[in-house]
Amino acid sequence: MEVRAAVAVAAGKPLEVTTVNLEGPKVGEVLVEIKATGICHTDEFTLSGADPEGLFPAILGHEGAGVVVEVGPGVTSLKPGDHVIPLYTPECRECYSCTSHKTNLCTSIRATQGQGLMPDGTSRFSTLDGDPILHYMGTSTFANYTVLPEIALAKIREDAPFDKVCYIGCGVTTGIGAVINTAKVEVGATAVVFGLGGIGLNVLQGLRMAGASMIVGVDLNPAKKEMAERFGMTHFVNPSEVEGDLVPYLVNLTKRRGDTIGGADYTFDCTGNVNVMRNALECAHRGWGQSIVIGVAPAGAEISTRPFQLVTGRVWKGTAFGGARGRTDVPKIVDWYMDGQIEIDPMITHTMPLEDINKGFDLMHAGESIRSVVLY
Amino acid sequence: MEVRAAVAVAAGKPLEVTTVNLEGPKVGEVLVEIKATGICHTDEFTLSGADPEGLFPAILGHEGAGVVVEVGPGVTSLKPGDHVIPLYTPECRECYSCTSHKTNLCTSIRATQGQGLMPDGTSRFSTLDGDPILHYMGTSTFANYTVLPEIALAKIREDAPFDKVCYIGCGVTTGIGAVINTAKVEVGATAVVFGLGGIGLNVLQGLRMAGASMIVGVDLNPAKKEMAERFGMTHFVNPSEVEGDLVPYLVNLTKRRGDTIGGADYTFDCTGNVNVMRNALECAHRGWGQSIVIGVAPAGAEISTRPFQLVTGRVWKGTAFGGARGRTDVPKIVDWYMDGQIEIDPMITHTMPLEDINKGFDLMHAGESIRSVVLY
Repeated sequence: MEVRAAVAVAAGKPLEVTTVNLEGPKVGEVLVEIKATGICHTDEFTLSGADPEGLFPAILGHEGAGVVVEVGPGVTSLKPGDHVIPLYTPECRECYSCTSHKTNLCTSIRATQGQGLMPDGTSRFSTLDGDPILHYMGTSTFANYTVLPEIALAKIREDAPFDKVCYIGCGVTTGIGAVINTAKVEVGATAVVFGLGGIGLNVLQGLRMAGASMIVGVDLNPAKKEMAERFGMTHFVNPSEVEGDLVPYLVNLTKRRGDTIGGADYTFDCTGNVNVMRNALECAHRGWGQSIVIGVAPAGAEISTRPFQLVTGRVWKGTAFGGARGRTDVPKIVDWYMDGQIEIDPMITHTMPLEDINKGFDLMHAGESIRSVVLY
Repeated sequence: MEVRAAVAVAAGKPLEVTTVNLEGPKVGEVLVEIKATGICHTDEFTLSGADPEGLFPAILGHEGAGVVVEVGPGVTSLKPGDHVIPLYTPECRECYSCTSHKTNLCTSIRATQGQGLMPDGTSRFSTLDGDPILHYMGTSTFANYTVLPEIALAKIREDAPFDKVCYIGCGVTTGIGAVINTAKVEVGATAVVFGLGGIGLNVLQGLRMAGASMIVGVDLNPAKKEMAERFGMTHFVNPSEVEGDLVPYLVNLTKRRGDTIGGADYTFDCTGNVNVMRNALECAHRGWGQSIVIGVAPAGAEISTRPFQLVTGRVWKGTAFGGARGRTDVPKIVDWYMDGQIEIDPMITHTMPLEDINKGFDLMHAGESIRSVVLY
């Protein structure tokens, strides 16, 4: 069938919105009509050429929501009409990783997904001339129809609005999941969140849900303060306004009554900046503070610290897709949104048709959007 | 009273065995006759001048065992005749850190201990001329009598031999505790231990106790193999004999049946070398592997890695005194030794009188000893 897609033809070039061919679903695959998709920094990371594993030409996009149109042979958990969110981290429930119950990083289709292919080693997308176009993160939501493995689709309730819950396909789950699944923040905890963009806001609301008592947000842009407070931030710190070093300032700010040391129980890097990641670790509390890396660093960038920071009890962790097992956890997060336990609407600052998708990237570059969503 | 002590007069100089003055215990303090003390790399680290926080003149030593001679006012948990192990990490059970139940790093006397002083801000040691000599790590076991805070003494059973259980005051507890308290290794786990010196051997026997199914030891010295096997090592790897990079070799070696990725559930650095610490992290299993830093790095040295290592699920931790709460845990470890659950005797390779203590440092430098113990 012919579908409309935004094709990443080469690193550093704008997406080309055009008509491409899409083959129907093969064994274990599902054809989905995408109704909405967010534009995420990871798409930009790949499109810019900064991603050393980026492949072209490809159809990017990994933060979508849509409806099942057709299922291939052997598909048992989905049927046409089901509402779904694509999962760039699948959940097969059968591989060594899934059955370990210790990680969400399903490895069943990792190799082919990384090559931009479906599990059988081929692509469903091609140009009208028949030249193959690669998939991206196993999802390729920058097309109004796409094919995905059954294990890469979370079935969600049918009353959830596509234009909002698409964001659960990446940013919302990553931020909230980092708090709930990776850090396992407890009631009364103190936390510092570095970077108050989309991920940071979702970390904030995850902390609020978890009952954290002090939620410090750190950002160089004072315009972030108002929205961050709406999502649960209790204290705002602008590093440019701090006299002296930021780490001791934050350590002191998070010092509880009776404590002689200070430091936060949990810290989160949502910037992708390796220097910030170090600050985040070092303002975690001596003895037990955990620091969670969420941001994606530039290729080749490395984090560093003195090992003394770890020997005295700080823990350095990271999270991918918020530690969420997509088919299991994403439907729950959709429920939380529908029940009003979490907010998404204020973070969707811009919407546009597929034809204008490059404007979404422009808004991201300009720092004007929290999230732009393409509506099909 | 006059006591015999090995005094560290200056960085880089041999210890001077001499007679010094020791004041009796003040409020909350205890006079202990030291019967035996191990010579640890941390003593050497300070004596060499490499420790940026090292102070002189001081009486080093932190791995002792002895008998209570006299208690100061207010001491309630100990009486003359009690057998004790000094604790460089005290356990007051009252400070913010102790009552957090989240760390063993008691902070009640941290400031004065770091200055080489008793909690009231003075030293009990002085030269025969009356010039003060500093304490070290709150313990100063390189003297046949020493004064310590009550909270820095673990009361142990009276049938335990001083010349063996002194090693529980540091090395044994650090190694076993890293496994049990910090990593919380479970039955059937896989592990890689870097560095098969005294700490490494104790990590090995901790892993054996915890029921680890694969215990890989890594050391450049093939002479370490036999002793390591005695303490539980199941596989020996000499990096100089590995073709290609060490990390992928270890990742593959620890790959279980059905696993497509490999890597150890737990890895331990017992070398203090920051490059080894990086290898240890990177051969931990994607998704859940934990790497524990035990070794003390040179001043200013830093650990580094790509944050991707954390984002894909590896956890970087450290441990001090094996995460043990000394007054609570050290008596249990003494019991384990007395019950035959752990071995110490083969690790005490040399003993000597205090007069020959510098020979113990020479043996350490030459790599000929696992542990030298001074017998008073």
